[in-house]
Amino acid sequence: MDHLKETTLSTTPVYSGKIIDLEIQEVLLPNGNKSKREIVKHPGAVAIIALTQENKLLLVRQYRKALEKTIVEIPAGKLEKNEDPLECAKRELLEETGYECGSLEYLSSFYTSPGFADELIHLYFTDSLKECKEQQPDEDEFLDVLEVSIEEAEEFVKNQQIHDAKTAYAVQYVLLKRKLEKDA
Amino acid sequence: MDHLKETTLSTTPVYSGKIIDLEIQEVLLPNGNKSKREIVKHPGAVAIIALTQENKLLLVRQYRKALEKTIVEIPAGKLEKNEDPLECAKRELLEETGYECGSLEYLSSFYTSPGFADELIHLYFTDSLKECKEQQPDEDEFLDVLEVSIEEAEEFVKNQQIHDAKTAYAVQYVLLKRKLEKDA
Repeated sequence: MDHLKETTLSTTPVYSGKIIDLEIQEVLLPNGNKSKREIVKHPGAVAIIALTQENKLLLVRQYRKALEKTIVEIPAGKLEKNEDPLECAKRELLEETGYECGSLEYLSSFYTSPGFADELIHLYFTDSLKECKEQQPDEDEFLDVLEVSIEEAEEFVKNQQIHDAKTAYAVQYVLLKRKLEKDA
Repeated sequence: MDHLKETTLSTTPVYSGKIIDLEIQEVLLPNGNKSKREIVKHPGAVAIIALTQENKLLLVRQYRKALEKTIVEIPAGKLEKNEDPLECAKRELLEETGYECGSLEYLSSFYTSPGFADELIHLYFTDSLKECKEQQPDEDEFLDVLEVSIEEAEEFVKNQQIHDAKTAYAVQYVLLKRKLEKDA
C-alpha cells in the first residue's frame, strides 16, 4: 500500500494534556505535494457489552461536556498508562456499574475517528456478571446506571436516545448474536 | 438529568485549525468540585453503507496519518460549512468511489468519541448505485476503491483488516439486514 503513504516532514506539538495531545504534521503526499495533518493522540479505551442475568444490557448515562448533553453509552473508559485492556475493562465495569464479571470475551478493536485521532477502543462482551456492589467512579465522573431489554435499547437507537457509535454497535451486536443463536 | 450536568466556568481556546479546533474548559462538577475538560470541535461527517448491483460492499483503502497506517473504511468525509448531510453523502460517495446513487436512506447519527470530541457522523444506506465514473478525490486525498462480498467483509473484521468503528458497524448492519429479510 506504499502508493497511498504520507511521509512526515515535520511535527509541531501544539498541546499536551490530561487525556489528549495535539500535534500538527507537515506531510509529503503520494503525488509529491505537501499538506498538513492535525492529529489527536489518545491513550486508547475499552468498552464492555454486558448482559445481566435477566438478559438486560448495562448502560450508563453521563454528561458529556464535548456535546453539552447527557447521553447513554455502554460502560467504557480510557486505558491507564501500561494498563492491560482486559484489566481495564474489568476495572471500568466495576467502577462505572458496580458489577464484577466472571469472564470477559474480547471481541475486537476499532479506531473511533481515524481522520483526526488515534483512539483505539477495545471491545469486550460478558454475560457472566456477578454480585453488584457500589459504583466507584473517578472523582470527576458522575453517572447513572441503566439496565434495559434489547427491545428497549433498539428503541433508544431509533429515537436517538442512543447516539453513540460504540453503543449502537453494541445493540446491533446483541441483536445479531440472538438471531444467530436462534437460527443455530 | 440535571444532577449529572457540568457547568462551564471558563473556556480557553488552544488551537483553531483546518479540520479541528481544541479548547480547554474549566467546569463545575455536580458535587461542587472543579475539573478540566479537553474538547475537540469537529464539523461533523457522513458515511455511506453502499451495496453494488452485485451485492458487494463499497470500501475505500486510505492512509490515515493519525494511525500511521493504511486502513479500510466505508466511504466517508467531513461536512463543508453549512452543507446538508445528505448532499455531503452524495458528494463524498461520488468523489471517493466514482459512484452516483439513485437514492440514499438516512439511517442514524452517532457521536464517534464523546469523551473528548463533538464529531457527529451521519450514516446513510444505498443499494441503488448508478453508473461509475472516475474518482474525484480532494487534492490531498488518495484512496483505492474495493468492492467486497459481505462474507469477505466479515472476514476483514475478524482478521482486523477492518479496524474502524463505522465500518464494523456497517458490516454488522448489512448482516443483520440480510438476516431480517431472510426471516421475513
